[in-house]
Amino acid sequence: MEDWSFPPAYNSSYLPDPSQRFWYPKRETMDPGAREKAILERIREVMAYAYAKAPFYKNKWDEAGIHPSHIRSLEDFEKVPVVTKQELRAAQERAEPFGDYLCIPENEVHRVHGTSGTTGRPVIFSIGKNDWDAIGNAHARIMWSFGIRPGDMVFIGALFSLYIGSWGILAGSERMRAKSFPFGAGAAGQTAIAARWLKLAKPKAIYNTPSYALHLAEVAREEKIDPREFGIKIMMCSGEPGGSIPAIRNKLEEIYGAKVIDCGTMAEMTPWMSSAGNSETDLGMVLWQDIVYHEVCDPKTFMRVPYGSQGTPVYTHLERTSQPMIRLASGDLTMWESGPAPCGRTYPYLPKGLYGRIDDMFQIRAENVYPSDIEAIVAGMPEYGGEHRVIITRAGQMDELFVQIEASPGIYQAGDAAIADLRAKAATLLQRGIGVRAKVEVLAPNTLERAQHKARRVIDDRNLFASLQQDRT
Amino acid sequence: MEDWSFPPAYNSSYLPDPSQRFWYPKRETMDPGAREKAILERIREVMAYAYAKAPFYKNKWDEAGIHPSHIRSLEDFEKVPVVTKQELRAAQERAEPFGDYLCIPENEVHRVHGTSGTTGRPVIFSIGKNDWDAIGNAHARIMWSFGIRPGDMVFIGALFSLYIGSWGILAGSERMRAKSFPFGAGAAGQTAIAARWLKLAKPKAIYNTPSYALHLAEVAREEKIDPREFGIKIMMCSGEPGGSIPAIRNKLEEIYGAKVIDCGTMAEMTPWMSSAGNSETDLGMVLWQDIVYHEVCDPKTFMRVPYGSQGTPVYTHLERTSQPMIRLASGDLTMWESGPAPCGRTYPYLPKGLYGRIDDMFQIRAENVYPSDIEAIVAGMPEYGGEHRVIITRAGQMDELFVQIEASPGIYQAGDAAIADLRAKAATLLQRGIGVRAKVEVLAPNTLERAQHKARRVIDDRNLFASLQQDRT
Repeated sequence: MEDWSFPPAYNSSYLPDPSQRFWYPKRETMDPGAREKAILERIREVMAYAYAKAPFYKNKWDEAGIHPSHIRSLEDFEKVPVVTKQELRAAQERAEPFGDYLCIPENEVHRVHGTSGTTGRPVIFSIGKNDWDAIGNAHARIMWSFGIRPGDMVFIGALFSLYIGSWGILAGSERMRAKSFPFGAGAAGQTAIAARWLKLAKPKAIYNTPSYALHLAEVAREEKIDPREFGIKIMMCSGEPGGSIPAIRNKLEEIYGAKVIDCGTMAEMTPWMSSAGNSETDLGMVLWQDIVYHEVCDPKTFMRVPYGSQGTPVYTHLERTSQPMIRLASGDLTMWESGPAPCGRTYPYLPKGLYGRIDDMFQIRAENVYPSDIEAIVAGMPEYGGEHRVIITRAGQMDELFVQIEASPGIYQAGDAAIADLRAKAATLLQRGIGVRAKVEVLAPNTLERAQHKARRVIDDRNLFASLQQDRT
Repeated sequence: MEDWSFPPAYNSSYLPDPSQRFWYPKRETMDPGAREKAILERIREVMAYAYAKAPFYKNKWDEAGIHPSHIRSLEDFEKVPVVTKQELRAAQERAEPFGDYLCIPENEVHRVHGTSGTTGRPVIFSIGKNDWDAIGNAHARIMWSFGIRPGDMVFIGALFSLYIGSWGILAGSERMRAKSFPFGAGAAGQTAIAARWLKLAKPKAIYNTPSYALHLAEVAREEKIDPREFGIKIMMCSGEPGGSIPAIRNKLEEIYGAKVIDCGTMAEMTPWMSSAGNSETDLGMVLWQDIVYHEVCDPKTFMRVPYGSQGTPVYTHLERTSQPMIRLASGDLTMWESGPAPCGRTYPYLPKGLYGRIDDMFQIRAENVYPSDIEAIVAGMPEYGGEHRVIITRAGQMDELFVQIEASPGIYQAGDAAIADLRAKAATLLQRGIGVRAKVEVLAPNTLERAQHKARRVIDDRNLFASLQQDRT
């Protein structure tokens, strides 16, 4: 097997032939069952390691009555309690500054990053040298799947600071032997300079958040530069879901003439590119299970949901010795499919990427409803005009769900009967899909405001209504 | 000899024992004559290399009638014409984007940085992988002289973008096996976050510009944090001359309780730390001649001035294969002394650092006068109150030089006779030191405004006077 062990030990001079489709052909296309066996072995290794080195894990698992030696299947592993961000913060308060889940000696920490701490105590990410090299290797391998090759110029248009997104791309780009241009972002006046540099340097690939890419295009036009003059072929997006939202993705591809590739899990999970689209997929992200083990789980039980179902990702590091995360709960919302992924890798994949947060879920008449479910239903209707809103209200004793749907121009022009048909059809599909009766209102096309970044489609005015009632008493 | 060759080939796993004073004891303390012989050999190697690889150098030297084989002494090398920044920009216009002084194949460029280009075409710095590793090695070696050791945390409080200062520190810190905390600077709200993180993480060393350090201290106090709570022991400064200006340096040391170490040549000259103070020097910078060859030259002839004299640095890379600079004119102003430097290294040194620009020089009655000369004379008088101004005017047919000097509180309170004595003494010393008669005015202490960053002490109103005269005709 190509270099797969815990702790990881990669040959830092290995580079595939540029014509090669996969960085590690065996690992990427192996039989999924054989891969799962190897993953289980890695899990047992990393758990034994963490249990021995980190009071955080020993105490947590002792309390749960779990010992690494108990884990004899991936089903056993589902019983390991998830780690929450709150627990990590508490661990760093107990054991300053790196927390009692740091599994290497403090003086072996190579890189320090973290959260901004604007809303409370910051959380520190500390990464050892061997892990940093393995992160570079993992990211280079995944960036290879994007179509980036040695000697290509990679322009990094994101802030270099606590935020580990930019640093992760740089580590991958350096390991790939690309030309790394770590330009950054976020300082005053920097975007106009970026536009002039991009026109001059013409990088093959760029990394940015979707909203920064939109901003950069606007600034470029103010500078009389068409973003297509940059000659960018590959735009890597992370940090926001935009790269998997068709409307935003299409807009970016139109503006830049580049292929948009969405990627990214969580900063704590660096190598965070382990969920990523690639040059051979359209929408969606492939799960590089041999780098980070991804489980899509029921958000209450944290047991895996079947392929084809929706759930929340739970992540486990298979290649980190410093602060390894073992079943970190993401809180994101996705749907997974079994492999092989469209690119030929035998990994499971997320056909719609990460499209929401489980805390976006609302309850109505005792049913759990995800806005993304409503979106999937209405956006799947050919009569859909491109935008909708969800309004939850409580006018009487009962919660009411209103869904406003724009009709397509054709339907809207066809007149009242067509509009009534659409209203009835949407109500039926919604009742069947989410188990709740909804009142549907059909709107003219382009009535609702389009969002630049992440659309805010749900309006819950139950509290507003309650407070109005109180004012009257 | 410890790993000294062109191209450089360092053992990336070498680390001295932490108790060791010098990273490379032999290279740092060798006989200066023997070092100069080795430097000459390196110069011949890098010149032959650049002549063969770079049309820029071949054409420039062919025109000047110079061939690398002609260089048989450091005196011969003084005849090599200097490179100016304007020539570099023109070379990049000719051969986009890296210029015809890039000596490696384009696809071997590892890192891209550059100038901001706010006032014209940006200049691109392109650095190969081998050079990048050698830069890390050089900076680690110099940071060792600052007292930084493996496992120490190094906080980098400067923008990560085109500016290569922060990246150079990071390369050194990583090579040193320090804990690198590349925090950055320059984004909105980032300084308050920096203050909270510094209090939490307590790094041993910080890198920043002097003006950023002053700003950070102010912001920390607004956050109710005393900068001494950061526990910083070593503050590395570059990018501005403040670290060698006693008033600013003392203020920073007082605020932070840290030792301030000034360093830095030019971005083009990366490894730019080749001029640097260290833990065993007070003011001033040591010239690491075996990494970058520094000549302090007459600003007109670009021949070396004798030790003890003032001139402008001219730099030559001894360890760069990508865009090597061979006799790059800096335009800075300094004074050099022969070694050994106070730290025991047998290098020449700049006892007052880089303290001005040659284009600050003004002419008065056919004499060249440097504001730094006036500063040295007045600041050297025990009666000096801490600030002064230089005013050049033309009231009649002749240029007049006025120097306003604050008296010390003691002298000022002693009354008119003491003030008259100071005025006469200063006038005598100035006439002797700069060869020009000056009118001296003595002011009360604290009359003149103190500058936060770089003081603006020279007012030349000759043009103003001339324009007023024109208005009257």
